[in-house]
Amino acid sequence: MNPYYHTLRVRYAETDQMGVVYHARYLDWFEVGRTEMIRASGMEYRTLEDKGLLLPVVDATIQYRKPARYDDWVEIRIMMTGHSHIRLEFSYEIRNKDTEELLVTGSTRHMWVNRQWKPARIDREAPELYQLLNQISAESE
Amino acid sequence: MNPYYHTLRVRYAETDQMGVVYHARYLDWFEVGRTEMIRASGMEYRTLEDKGLLLPVVDATIQYRKPARYDDWVEIRIMMTGHSHIRLEFSYEIRNKDTEELLVTGSTRHMWVNRQWKPARIDREAPELYQLLNQISAESE
Amino acid sequence: MNPYYHTLRVRYAETDQMGVVYHARYLDWFEVGRTEMIRASGMEYRTLEDKGLLLPVVDATIQYRKPARYDDWVEIRIMMTGHSHIRLEFSYEIRNKDTEELLVTGSTRHMWVNRQWKPARIDREAPELYQLLNQISAESE
Amino acid sequence: MNPYYHTLRVRYAETDQMGVVYHARYLDWFEVGRTEMIRASGMEYRTLEDKGLLLPVVDATIQYRKPARYDDWVEIRIMMTGHSHIRLEFSYEIRNKDTEELLVTGSTRHMWVNRQWKPARIDREAPELYQLLNQISAESE
Repeated sequence: MNPYYHTLRVRYAETDQMGVVYHARYLDWFEVGRTEMIRASGMEYRTLEDKGLLLPVVDATIQYRKPARYDDWVEIRIMMTGHSHIRLEFSYEIRNKDTEELLVTGSTRHMWVNRQWKPARIDREAPELYQLLNQISAESE
Repeated sequence: MNPYYHTLRVRYAETDQMGVVYHARYLDWFEVGRTEMIRASGMEYRTLEDKGLLLPVVDATIQYRKPARYDDWVEIRIMMTGHSHIRLEFSYEIRNKDTEELLVTGSTRHMWVNRQWKPARIDREAPELYQLLNQISAESE
Repeated sequence: MNPYYHTLRVRYAETDQMGVVYHARYLDWFEVGRTEMIRASGMEYRTLEDKGLLLPVVDATIQYRKPARYDDWVEIRIMMTGHSHIRLEFSYEIRNKDTEELLVTGSTRHMWVNRQWKPARIDREAPELYQLLNQISAESE
Repeated sequence: MNPYYHTLRVRYAETDQMGVVYHARYLDWFEVGRTEMIRASGMEYRTLEDKGLLLPVVDATIQYRKPARYDDWVEIRIMMTGHSHIRLEFSYEIRNKDTEELLVTGSTRHMWVNRQWKPARIDREAPELYQLLNQISAESE
Protein backbone atom coordinates (compact mmCIF):
# COMPACT_ATOMS: atom_id res chain seq x y z
CA MET A 1 0.00 0.00 0.00
CA ASN A 2 2.78 2.40 0.80
CA PRO A 3 4.25 3.09 -1.69
CA TYR A 4 1.55 2.46 -4.24
CA TYR A 5 2.17 2.19 -7.98
CA HIS A 6 -0.10 3.18 -10.83
CA THR A 7 0.69 3.16 -14.53
CA LEU A 8 -0.84 5.19 -17.33
CA ARG A 9 -0.34 5.96 -21.00
CA VAL A 10 0.50 9.53 -22.01
CA ARG A 11 -2.29 11.13 -24.02
CA TYR A 12 -1.89 13.35 -27.05
CA ALA A 13 -3.94 16.02 -25.28
CA GLU A 14 -1.27 16.16 -22.59
CA THR A 15 1.52 17.23 -24.93
CA ASP A 16 2.48 20.76 -25.88
CA GLN A 17 4.33 22.23 -28.83
CA MET A 18 7.69 21.48 -27.24
CA GLY A 19 6.83 17.88 -28.13
CA VAL A 20 6.63 16.77 -24.50
CA VAL A 21 4.04 16.56 -21.75
CA TYR A 22 2.93 20.05 -20.67
CA HIS A 23 4.44 20.64 -17.24
CA ALA A 24 1.14 21.21 -15.41
CA ARG A 25 -0.27 17.83 -16.48
CA TYR A 26 1.93 15.94 -14.03
CA LEU A 27 -0.23 17.38 -11.25
CA ASP A 28 -3.21 15.68 -12.88
CA TRP A 29 -1.30 12.40 -12.72
CA PHE A 30 -0.41 12.94 -9.07
CA GLU A 31 -4.14 13.18 -8.46
CA VAL A 32 -4.86 10.01 -10.43
CA GLY A 33 -2.27 8.31 -8.24
CA ARG A 34 -3.93 9.52 -5.02
CA THR A 35 -7.35 8.35 -6.18
CA GLU A 36 -6.03 4.90 -7.03
CA MET A 37 -4.02 4.57 -3.83
CA ILE A 38 -7.09 5.37 -1.73
CA ARG A 39 -9.16 2.90 -3.77
CA ALA A 40 -6.53 0.19 -3.30
CA SER A 41 -6.75 0.75 0.43
CA GLY A 42 -10.41 -0.19 0.35
CA MET A 43 -12.03 3.23 0.30
CA GLU A 44 -13.14 5.56 -2.48
CA TYR A 45 -12.31 9.21 -2.55
CA ARG A 46 -15.61 9.97 -4.24
CA THR A 47 -17.45 8.39 -1.32
CA LEU A 48 -15.62 10.77 0.99
CA GLU A 49 -16.74 13.72 -1.11
CA ASP A 50 -20.30 12.42 -1.04
CA LYS A 51 -20.06 12.61 2.76
CA GLY A 52 -18.98 16.22 2.46
CA LEU A 53 -15.24 15.77 3.04
CA LEU A 54 -13.02 17.57 0.55
CA LEU A 55 -9.25 17.33 0.34
CA PRO A 56 -7.93 20.44 -1.41
CA VAL A 57 -4.24 20.88 -2.10
CA VAL A 58 -2.49 23.29 0.27
CA ASP A 59 0.83 23.32 -1.53
CA ALA A 60 2.73 21.40 -4.17
CA THR A 61 6.29 21.09 -5.39
CA ILE A 62 7.44 19.46 -8.58
CA GLN A 63 10.86 18.76 -10.06
CA TYR A 64 11.27 18.04 -13.76
CA ARG A 65 14.21 15.84 -14.74
CA LYS A 66 13.29 14.40 -18.09
CA PRO A 67 10.17 14.95 -20.13
CA ALA A 68 7.52 12.31 -20.67
CA ARG A 69 6.32 12.06 -24.25
CA TYR A 70 3.17 11.09 -26.08
CA ASP A 71 2.32 7.41 -25.80
CA ASP A 72 4.97 6.74 -23.14
CA TRP A 73 3.92 4.20 -20.56
CA VAL A 74 4.65 5.88 -17.24
CA GLU A 75 4.55 4.66 -13.67
CA ILE A 76 3.54 6.87 -10.77
CA ARG A 77 4.90 5.91 -7.35
CA ILE A 78 2.79 7.47 -4.60
CA MET A 79 3.90 7.51 -0.99
CA MET A 80 1.87 8.81 1.94
CA THR A 81 4.53 10.75 3.81
CA GLY A 82 2.54 12.21 6.67
CA HIS A 83 -0.93 12.62 8.12
CA SER A 84 -2.69 14.16 11.08
CA HIS A 85 -6.29 14.86 12.15
CA ILE A 86 -6.55 17.53 9.50
CA ARG A 87 -3.66 17.11 7.08
CA LEU A 88 -2.29 14.61 4.60
CA GLU A 89 0.98 14.57 2.68
CA PHE A 90 2.15 12.63 -0.34
CA SER A 91 5.32 12.33 -2.36
CA TYR A 92 5.51 11.16 -5.97
CA GLU A 93 7.93 9.74 -8.46
CA ILE A 94 7.11 9.35 -12.12
CA ARG A 95 9.20 7.00 -14.22
CA ASN A 96 9.19 5.82 -17.77
CA LYS A 97 7.93 2.28 -17.25
CA ASP A 98 9.98 0.87 -20.12
CA THR A 99 13.32 2.53 -19.50
CA GLU A 100 12.86 3.01 -15.72
CA GLU A 101 14.23 6.53 -16.10
CA LEU A 102 13.11 8.93 -13.40
CA LEU A 103 11.16 11.75 -15.06
CA VAL A 104 9.48 13.81 -12.37
CA THR A 105 9.36 13.98 -8.58
CA GLY A 106 7.05 16.01 -6.42
CA SER A 107 5.01 16.41 -3.28
CA THR A 108 1.58 17.67 -2.27
CA ARG A 109 0.11 18.63 1.07
CA HIS A 110 -3.61 18.61 1.68
CA MET A 111 -6.10 19.69 4.29
CA TRP A 112 -9.45 18.07 5.05
CA VAL A 113 -12.29 20.57 4.81
CA ASN A 114 -16.07 20.38 4.77
CA ARG A 115 -18.38 21.67 2.04
CA GLN A 116 -18.07 25.17 3.53
CA TRP A 117 -14.26 24.91 3.23
CA LYS A 118 -13.88 24.89 7.01
CA PRO A 119 -11.19 22.56 8.38
CA ALA A 120 -12.61 19.14 9.24
CA ARG A 121 -11.12 16.78 11.85
CA ILE A 122 -11.34 13.44 10.15
CA ASP A 123 -10.75 11.47 13.35
CA ARG A 124 -14.24 12.76 14.25
CA GLU A 125 -15.87 13.13 10.85
CA ALA A 126 -14.63 9.88 9.34
CA PRO A 127 -13.00 7.71 12.04
CA GLU A 128 -12.83 4.66 9.75
CA LEU A 129 -10.83 6.73 7.27
CA TYR A 130 -8.54 8.01 9.99
CA GLN A 131 -7.87 4.46 11.12
CA LEU A 132 -7.14 3.45 7.57
CA LEU A 133 -4.61 6.26 7.16
CA ASN A 134 -2.96 5.14 10.39
CA GLN A 135 -2.63 1.66 8.93
CA ILE A 136 -1.16 2.86 5.66
CA SER A 137 1.26 5.00 7.58
CA ALA A 138 2.29 2.13 9.89
CA GLU A 139 2.93 -0.17 6.92
CA SER A 140 5.59 2.12 5.60
CA GLU A 141 7.67 2.18 8.77
CA MET B 1 -25.17 41.97 -28.93
CA ASN B 2 -25.85 39.49 -31.67
CA PRO B 3 -23.30 38.63 -32.92
CA TYR B 4 -20.93 39.29 -30.07
CA TYR B 5 -17.13 39.37 -30.44
CA HIS B 6 -14.51 38.36 -27.92
CA THR B 7 -10.76 38.18 -28.42
CA LEU B 8 -8.18 36.12 -26.60
CA ARG B 9 -4.53 35.18 -26.79
CA VAL B 10 -3.63 31.52 -27.43
CA ARG B 11 -1.89 29.97 -24.42
CA TYR B 12 1.06 27.63 -24.51
CA ALA B 13 -0.96 25.13 -22.49
CA GLU B 14 -3.47 24.96 -25.35
CA THR B 15 -0.97 23.68 -27.91
CA ASP B 16 -0.11 20.06 -28.64
CA GLN B 17 2.89 18.40 -30.20
CA MET B 18 1.59 19.07 -33.70
CA GLY B 19 2.58 22.66 -32.91
CA VAL B 20 -1.01 23.93 -33.05
CA VAL B 21 -3.94 24.36 -30.68
CA TYR B 22 -5.25 20.98 -29.51
CA HIS B 23 -8.57 20.47 -31.25
CA ALA B 24 -10.67 20.12 -28.08
CA ARG B 25 -9.55 23.52 -26.74
CA TYR B 26 -11.75 25.39 -29.19
CA LEU B 27 -14.75 24.17 -27.21
CA ASP B 28 -13.26 25.93 -24.16
CA TRP B 29 -13.13 29.12 -26.21
CA PHE B 30 -16.74 28.71 -27.36
CA GLU B 31 -17.62 28.66 -23.67
CA VAL B 32 -15.57 31.76 -22.94
CA GLY B 33 -17.47 33.44 -25.74
CA ARG B 34 -20.85 32.44 -24.28
CA THR B 35 -19.91 33.70 -20.84
CA GLU B 36 -18.81 37.06 -22.24
CA MET B 37 -21.82 37.42 -24.49
CA ILE B 38 -24.17 36.85 -21.56
CA ARG B 39 -22.19 39.33 -19.44
CA ALA B 40 -22.33 41.93 -22.20
CA SER B 41 -26.10 41.53 -22.24
CA GLY B 42 -26.24 42.63 -18.60
CA MET B 43 -26.47 39.28 -16.88
CA GLU B 44 -23.87 36.90 -15.46
CA TYR B 45 -23.91 33.21 -16.13
CA ARG B 46 -22.50 32.52 -12.69
CA THR B 47 -25.48 34.31 -11.15
CA LEU B 48 -27.75 31.95 -13.04
CA GLU B 49 -25.87 28.96 -11.66
CA ASP B 50 -26.14 30.41 -8.16
CA LYS B 51 -29.92 30.38 -8.68
CA GLY B 52 -29.71 26.72 -9.60
CA LEU B 53 -30.01 27.04 -13.36
CA LEU B 54 -27.45 25.03 -15.32
CA LEU B 55 -26.94 25.10 -19.08
CA PRO B 56 -25.25 21.87 -20.13
CA VAL B 57 -24.30 21.23 -23.73
CA VAL B 58 -26.64 18.85 -25.56
CA ASP B 59 -24.61 18.60 -28.72
CA ALA B 60 -21.76 20.32 -30.50
CA THR B 61 -20.28 20.42 -33.97
CA ILE B 62 -16.95 21.86 -34.95
CA GLN B 63 -15.17 22.34 -38.26
CA TYR B 64 -11.43 22.90 -38.42
CA ARG B 65 -10.15 24.93 -41.37
CA LYS B 66 -6.80 26.26 -40.25
CA PRO B 67 -5.02 25.76 -36.97
CA ALA B 68 -4.56 28.49 -34.39
CA ARG B 69 -1.06 28.65 -32.95
CA TYR B 70 0.57 29.68 -29.71
CA ASP B 71 0.39 33.41 -29.05
CA ASP B 72 -2.03 34.06 -31.89
CA TRP B 73 -4.55 36.75 -31.14
CA VAL B 74 -7.90 35.19 -32.06
CA GLU B 75 -11.42 36.55 -32.27
CA ILE B 76 -14.48 34.52 -31.40
CA ARG B 77 -17.73 35.55 -33.04
CA ILE B 78 -20.71 34.20 -31.09
CA MET B 79 -24.21 34.25 -32.47
CA MET B 80 -27.34 33.18 -30.62
CA THR B 81 -29.10 31.21 -33.33
CA GLY B 82 -32.15 29.97 -31.49
CA HIS B 83 -33.88 29.76 -28.13
CA SER B 84 -37.02 28.45 -26.54
CA HIS B 85 -38.39 27.93 -23.02
CA ILE B 86 -35.89 25.17 -22.45
CA ARG B 87 -33.24 25.36 -25.16
CA LEU B 88 -30.57 27.70 -26.43
CA GLU B 89 -28.40 27.50 -29.55
CA PHE B 90 -25.23 29.27 -30.57
CA SER B 91 -22.96 29.33 -33.58
CA TYR B 92 -19.31 30.35 -33.55
CA GLU B 93 -16.57 31.55 -35.84
CA ILE B 94 -12.98 31.83 -34.75
CA ARG B 95 -10.62 34.00 -36.78
CA ASN B 96 -7.04 35.03 -36.55
CA LYS B 97 -7.48 38.64 -35.47
CA ASP B 98 -4.39 39.82 -37.35
CA THR B 99 -4.86 38.03 -40.65
CA GLU B 100 -8.68 37.73 -40.46
CA GLU B 101 -8.36 34.15 -41.65
CA LEU B 102 -11.24 31.92 -40.64
CA LEU B 103 -9.85 29.11 -38.47
CA VAL B 104 -12.76 27.25 -36.92
CA THR B 105 -16.54 27.25 -37.07
CA GLY B 106 -18.96 25.42 -34.85
CA SER B 107 -22.25 25.23 -33.03
CA THR B 108 -23.56 24.17 -29.65
CA ARG B 109 -27.05 23.43 -28.40
CA HIS B 110 -27.91 23.65 -24.73
CA MET B 111 -30.76 22.79 -22.40
CA TRP B 112 -31.70 24.58 -19.19
CA VAL B 113 -31.78 22.19 -16.25
CA ASN B 114 -32.01 22.55 -12.48
CA ARG B 115 -29.52 21.24 -9.93
CA GLN B 116 -31.13 17.80 -10.21
CA TRP B 117 -30.54 17.90 -13.98
CA LYS B 118 -34.27 18.04 -14.64
CA PRO B 119 -35.34 20.31 -17.53
CA ALA B 120 -36.15 23.81 -16.34
CA ARG B 121 -38.51 26.21 -18.09
CA ILE B 122 -36.71 29.49 -17.88
CA ASP B 123 -39.75 31.56 -18.79
CA ARG B 124 -40.96 30.51 -15.34
CA GLU B 125 -37.72 30.03 -13.43
CA ALA B 126 -35.98 33.16 -14.69
CA PRO B 127 -38.43 35.36 -16.61
CA GLU B 128 -36.01 38.31 -16.74
CA LEU B 129 -33.49 36.03 -18.46
CA TYR B 130 -36.08 34.78 -20.89
CA GLN B 131 -36.99 38.36 -21.78
CA LEU B 132 -33.34 39.16 -22.29
CA LEU B 133 -32.90 36.23 -24.66
CA ASN B 134 -35.93 37.42 -26.60
CA GLN B 135 -34.28 40.82 -26.97
CA ILE B 136 -30.98 39.40 -28.13
CA SER B 137 -32.82 37.25 -30.59
CA ALA B 138 -34.87 40.15 -31.91
CA GLU B 139 -31.79 42.32 -32.42
CA SER B 140 -30.40 39.85 -34.88
CA GLU B 141 -33.38 39.81 -37.16
CA MET C 1 -10.63 -4.63 -34.37
CA ASN C 2 -13.67 -2.87 -35.65
CA PRO C 3 -15.26 -1.83 -33.36
CA TYR C 4 -12.54 -1.52 -30.76
CA TYR C 5 -13.18 -1.02 -27.04
CA HIS C 6 -11.09 0.87 -24.53
CA THR C 7 -11.93 1.61 -20.91
CA LEU C 8 -10.71 4.38 -18.67
CA ARG C 9 -11.35 5.89 -15.28
CA VAL C 10 -12.68 9.46 -15.08
CA ARG C 11 -10.14 11.82 -13.52
CA TYR C 12 -10.87 14.58 -11.06
CA ALA C 13 -9.15 17.03 -13.41
CA GLU C 14 -11.78 16.22 -16.03
CA THR C 15 -14.73 17.43 -13.94
CA ASP C 16 -16.14 20.93 -13.81
CA GLN C 17 -18.20 22.77 -11.24
CA MET C 18 -21.42 21.24 -12.56
CA GLY C 19 -20.10 18.08 -10.90
CA VAL C 20 -19.72 16.23 -14.19
CA VAL C 21 -17.09 15.74 -16.87
CA TYR C 22 -16.41 18.99 -18.72
CA HIS C 23 -17.94 18.59 -22.18
CA ALA C 24 -14.71 19.15 -24.14
CA ARG C 25 -12.91 16.33 -22.35
CA TYR C 26 -14.80 13.66 -24.29
CA LEU C 27 -12.81 14.70 -27.36
CA ASP C 28 -9.65 13.81 -25.41
CA TRP C 29 -11.13 10.36 -24.81
CA PHE C 30 -12.03 9.94 -28.47
CA GLU C 31 -8.34 10.51 -29.16
CA VAL C 32 -7.26 8.00 -26.55
CA GLY C 33 -9.56 5.53 -28.24
CA ARG C 34 -8.04 6.18 -31.66
CA THR C 35 -4.51 5.75 -30.33
CA GLU C 36 -5.39 2.44 -28.71
CA MET C 37 -7.29 1.15 -31.72
CA ILE C 38 -4.32 1.83 -33.97
CA ARG C 39 -1.98 0.17 -31.48
CA ALA C 40 -4.23 -2.88 -31.27
CA SER C 41 -4.03 -3.15 -35.04
CA GLY C 42 -0.28 -3.55 -34.79
CA MET C 43 0.88 -0.04 -35.56
CA GLU C 44 1.64 2.97 -33.38
CA TYR C 45 0.35 6.41 -34.12
CA ARG C 46 3.51 7.94 -32.70
CA THR C 47 5.56 6.00 -35.22
CA LEU C 48 3.50 7.54 -37.97
CA GLU C 49 4.18 11.00 -36.60
CA ASP C 50 7.87 10.20 -36.42
CA LYS C 51 7.67 9.48 -40.16
CA GLY C 52 6.14 12.90 -40.68
CA LEU C 53 2.51 11.85 -41.11
CA LEU C 54 0.04 13.87 -39.05
CA LEU C 55 -3.67 13.20 -38.72
CA PRO C 56 -5.41 16.43 -37.71
CA VAL C 57 -9.14 16.53 -37.08
CA VAL C 58 -11.14 18.09 -39.91
CA ASP C 59 -14.46 18.11 -38.12
CA ALA C 60 -16.15 16.61 -35.10
CA THR C 61 -19.66 16.12 -33.79
CA ILE C 62 -20.64 15.12 -30.30
CA GLN C 63 -23.96 14.35 -28.65
CA TYR C 64 -24.33 14.43 -24.87
CA ARG C 65 -26.97 12.15 -23.39
CA LYS C 66 -25.93 11.63 -19.79
CA PRO C 67 -22.93 13.03 -17.99
CA ALA C 68 -19.97 10.94 -16.91
CA ARG C 69 -18.82 11.66 -13.38
CA TYR C 70 -15.59 11.55 -11.42
CA ASP C 71 -14.27 8.05 -10.88
CA ASP C 72 -16.76 6.47 -13.27
CA TRP C 73 -15.37 3.55 -15.22
CA VAL C 74 -16.25 4.31 -18.84
CA GLU C 75 -15.95 2.36 -22.03
CA ILE C 76 -15.18 3.95 -25.38
CA ARG C 77 -16.34 2.09 -28.48
CA ILE C 78 -14.42 3.23 -31.54
CA MET C 79 -15.47 2.33 -35.02
CA MET C 80 -13.59 3.17 -38.21
CA THR C 81 -16.45 4.28 -40.45
CA GLY C 82 -14.61 5.29 -43.57
CA HIS C 83 -11.21 5.82 -45.13
CA SER C 84 -9.60 6.86 -48.38
CA HIS C 85 -6.12 7.75 -49.63
CA ILE C 86 -6.23 10.98 -47.66
CA ARG C 87 -9.09 10.72 -45.15
CA LEU C 88 -10.16 8.71 -42.17
CA GLU C 89 -13.43 8.68 -40.24
CA PHE C 90 -14.39 7.34 -36.85
CA SER C 91 -17.52 7.11 -34.76
CA TYR C 92 -17.61 6.77 -31.00
CA GLU C 93 -19.88 5.65 -28.21
CA ILE C 94 -19.05 6.20 -24.57
CA ARG C 95 -20.86 4.14 -21.97
CA ASN C 96 -20.74 3.81 -18.24
CA LYS C 97 -19.04 0.44 -17.96
CA ASP C 98 -20.94 -0.54 -14.79
CA THR C 99 -24.46 0.50 -15.74
CA GLU C 100 -23.99 0.18 -19.54
CA GLU C 101 -25.80 3.48 -19.95
CA LEU C 102 -24.96 5.33 -23.15
CA LEU C 103 -23.44 8.68 -22.19
CA VAL C 104 -21.99 10.27 -25.30
CA THR C 105 -21.82 9.59 -29.03
CA GLY C 106 -19.76 11.35 -31.63
CA SER C 107 -17.75 11.30 -34.79
CA THR C 108 -14.52 12.73 -36.12
CA ARG C 109 -13.11 13.09 -39.61
CA HIS C 110 -9.40 13.40 -40.24
CA MET C 111 -7.04 14.17 -43.05
CA TRP C 112 -3.50 12.86 -43.51
CA VAL C 113 -1.01 15.70 -43.88
CA ASN C 114 2.75 16.01 -43.85
CA ARG C 115 4.83 18.19 -41.49
CA GLN C 116 4.10 21.18 -43.75
CA TRP C 117 0.38 20.51 -43.33
CA LYS C 118 0.07 19.58 -46.99
CA PRO C 119 -2.30 16.69 -47.78
CA ALA C 120 -0.46 13.36 -47.85
CA ARG C 121 -1.56 10.30 -49.83
CA ILE C 122 -0.95 7.47 -47.44
CA ASP C 123 -1.23 4.78 -50.08
CA ARG C 124 2.07 6.26 -51.30
CA GLU C 125 3.59 7.63 -48.10
CA ALA C 126 2.77 4.66 -45.90
CA PRO C 127 1.46 1.75 -48.00
CA GLU C 128 1.63 -0.71 -45.08
CA LEU C 129 -0.66 1.61 -43.10
CA TYR C 130 -3.04 1.91 -46.01
CA GLN C 131 -3.22 -1.85 -46.29
CA LEU C 132 -3.88 -2.10 -42.58
CA LEU C 133 -6.76 0.36 -42.79
CA ASN C 134 -8.20 -1.66 -45.66
CA GLN C 135 -8.10 -4.73 -43.45
CA ILE C 136 -9.77 -3.01 -40.51
CA SER C 137 -12.40 -1.70 -42.83
CA ALA C 138 -13.01 -5.12 -44.41
CA GLU C 139 -13.42 -6.77 -41.00
CA SER C 140 -16.37 -4.60 -40.21
CA GLU C 141 -18.37 -5.52 -43.25
CA MET D 1 8.49 45.67 -15.99
CA ASN D 2 9.45 43.97 -12.80
CA PRO D 3 7.03 43.10 -11.34
CA TYR D 4 4.62 42.78 -14.24
CA TYR D 5 0.85 42.46 -13.86
CA HIS D 6 -1.58 40.57 -16.05
CA THR D 7 -5.28 40.02 -15.46
CA LEU D 8 -7.56 37.30 -16.72
CA ARG D 9 -11.06 35.95 -16.29
CA VAL D 10 -11.50 32.45 -14.82
CA ARG D 11 -12.96 30.05 -17.38
CA TYR D 12 -15.59 27.42 -16.73
CA ALA D 13 -13.22 24.81 -18.15
CA GLU D 14 -10.77 25.62 -15.37
CA THR D 15 -13.12 24.65 -12.54
CA ASP D 16 -13.51 21.22 -10.99
CA GLN D 17 -16.30 19.56 -9.07
CA MET D 18 -15.15 21.18 -5.82
CA GLY D 19 -16.59 24.34 -7.39
CA VAL D 20 -13.20 26.06 -7.60
CA VAL D 21 -10.32 26.31 -10.04
CA TYR D 22 -8.56 22.95 -10.44
CA HIS D 23 -5.22 23.28 -8.68
CA ALA D 24 -3.05 22.50 -11.73
CA ARG D 25 -4.57 25.32 -13.78
CA TYR D 26 -2.67 27.98 -11.85
CA LEU D 27 0.49 26.73 -13.55
CA ASP D 28 -1.18 27.55 -16.89
CA TRP D 29 -1.74 31.09 -15.61
CA PHE D 30 1.87 31.40 -14.47
CA GLU D 31 2.81 30.66 -18.03
CA VAL D 32 0.39 33.22 -19.43
CA GLY D 33 2.02 35.72 -17.09
CA ARG D 34 5.52 34.85 -18.33
CA THR D 35 4.47 35.18 -21.96
CA GLU D 36 2.93 38.59 -21.35
CA MET D 37 5.85 39.84 -19.27
CA ILE D 38 8.30 38.94 -22.04
CA ARG D 39 6.06 40.59 -24.63
CA ALA D 40 5.81 43.74 -22.54
CA SER D 41 9.60 43.85 -22.46
CA GLY D 42 9.64 44.11 -26.24
CA MET D 43 10.33 40.50 -27.18
CA GLU D 44 8.10 37.56 -27.98
CA TYR D 45 8.58 34.15 -26.49
CA ARG D 46 7.33 32.53 -29.67
CA THR D 47 10.07 34.29 -31.62
CA LEU D 48 12.61 32.73 -29.28
CA GLU D 49 11.14 29.31 -29.92
CA ASP D 50 11.28 29.94 -33.66
CA LYS D 51 15.02 30.51 -33.19
CA GLY D 52 15.28 27.15 -31.48
CA LEU D 53 15.45 28.35 -27.88
CA LEU D 54 13.14 26.52 -25.49
CA LEU D 55 12.58 27.36 -21.85
CA PRO D 56 11.29 24.27 -20.07
CA VAL D 57 10.38 24.35 -16.39
CA VAL D 58 12.99 22.76 -14.13
CA ASP D 59 10.96 22.98 -10.94
CA ALA D 60 7.89 24.67 -9.58
CA THR D 61 6.34 25.36 -6.19
CA ILE D 62 2.83 26.54 -5.52
CA GLN D 63 0.97 27.54 -2.37
CA TYR D 64 -2.81 27.61 -2.29
CA ARG D 65 -4.38 30.07 0.14
CA LYS D 66 -7.85 30.69 -1.18
CA PRO D 67 -9.50 29.23 -4.25
CA ALA D 68 -10.27 31.24 -7.36
CA ARG D 69 -13.73 30.60 -8.75
CA TYR D 70 -15.44 30.64 -12.13
CA ASP D 71 -15.74 34.12 -13.63
CA ASP D 72 -13.45 35.72 -11.02
CA TRP D 73 -11.29 38.47 -12.38
CA VAL D 74 -7.80 37.61 -11.19
CA GLU D 75 -4.49 39.42 -11.34
CA ILE D 76 -1.17 37.64 -11.78
CA ARG D 77 1.90 39.45 -10.46
CA ILE D 78 5.05 38.06 -12.10
CA MET D 79 8.49 38.90 -10.81
CA MET D 80 11.76 37.82 -12.42
CA THR D 81 13.72 36.76 -9.38
CA GLY D 82 16.94 35.54 -10.92
CA HIS D 83 18.71 34.80 -14.17
CA SER D 84 22.03 33.57 -15.46
CA HIS D 85 23.49 32.48 -18.80
CA ILE D 86 21.40 29.35 -18.71
CA ARG D 87 18.69 29.82 -16.07
CA LEU D 88 15.72 32.00 -15.31
CA GLU D 89 13.56 32.24 -12.21
CA PHE D 90 10.17 33.77 -11.57
CA SER D 91 7.87 34.22 -8.61
CA TYR D 92 4.12 34.71 -8.83
CA GLU D 93 1.23 36.06 -6.81
CA ILE D 94 -2.36 35.61 -7.90
CA ARG D 95 -5.00 37.86 -6.37
CA ASN D 96 -8.68 38.34 -6.78
CA LYS D 97 -8.70 41.64 -8.66
CA ASP D 98 -11.93 42.82 -7.03
CA THR D 99 -11.29 41.90 -3.42
CA GLU D 100 -7.47 42.06 -3.60
CA GLU D 101 -7.34 38.82 -1.62
CA LEU D 102 -4.18 36.81 -2.16
CA LEU D 103 -5.16 33.43 -3.62
CA VAL D 104 -2.03 31.64 -4.76
CA THR D 105 1.73 32.17 -4.67
CA GLY D 106 4.39 30.21 -6.44
CA SER D 107 7.70 30.05 -8.21
CA THR D 108 9.19 28.42 -11.28
CA ARG D 109 12.76 27.87 -12.38
CA HIS D 110 13.65 27.36 -16.02
CA MET D 111 16.60 26.37 -18.12
CA TRP D 112 17.37 27.51 -21.67
CA VAL D 113 17.79 24.55 -24.01
CA ASN D 114 18.04 24.07 -27.75
CA ARG D 115 15.77 21.90 -29.90
CA GLN D 116 17.79 18.86 -28.88
CA TRP D 117 17.14 19.70 -25.23
CA LYS D 118 20.82 20.50 -24.66
CA PRO D 119 21.56 23.47 -22.37
CA ALA D 120 21.91 26.70 -24.35
CA ARG D 121 23.94 29.71 -23.22
CA ILE D 122 21.72 32.62 -24.13
CA ASP D 123 24.46 35.20 -23.77
CA ARG D 124 25.85 33.54 -26.91
CA GLU D 125 22.71 32.24 -28.59
CA ALA D 126 20.57 35.33 -28.07
CA PRO D 127 22.70 38.20 -26.73
CA GLU D 128 19.91 40.76 -27.22
CA LEU D 129 17.68 38.65 -25.00
CA TYR D 130 20.38 38.31 -22.39
CA GLN D 131 20.81 42.07 -22.33
CA LEU D 132 17.08 42.51 -21.97
CA LEU D 133 16.97 40.16 -18.98
CA ASN D 134 19.80 42.13 -17.41
CA GLN D 135 17.75 45.29 -17.81
CA ILE D 136 14.61 43.76 -16.30
CA SER D 137 16.67 42.47 -13.45
CA ALA D 138 18.34 45.84 -12.85
CA GLU D 139 15.00 47.64 -12.77
CA SER D 140 13.89 45.63 -9.82
CA GLU D 141 16.82 46.46 -7.61
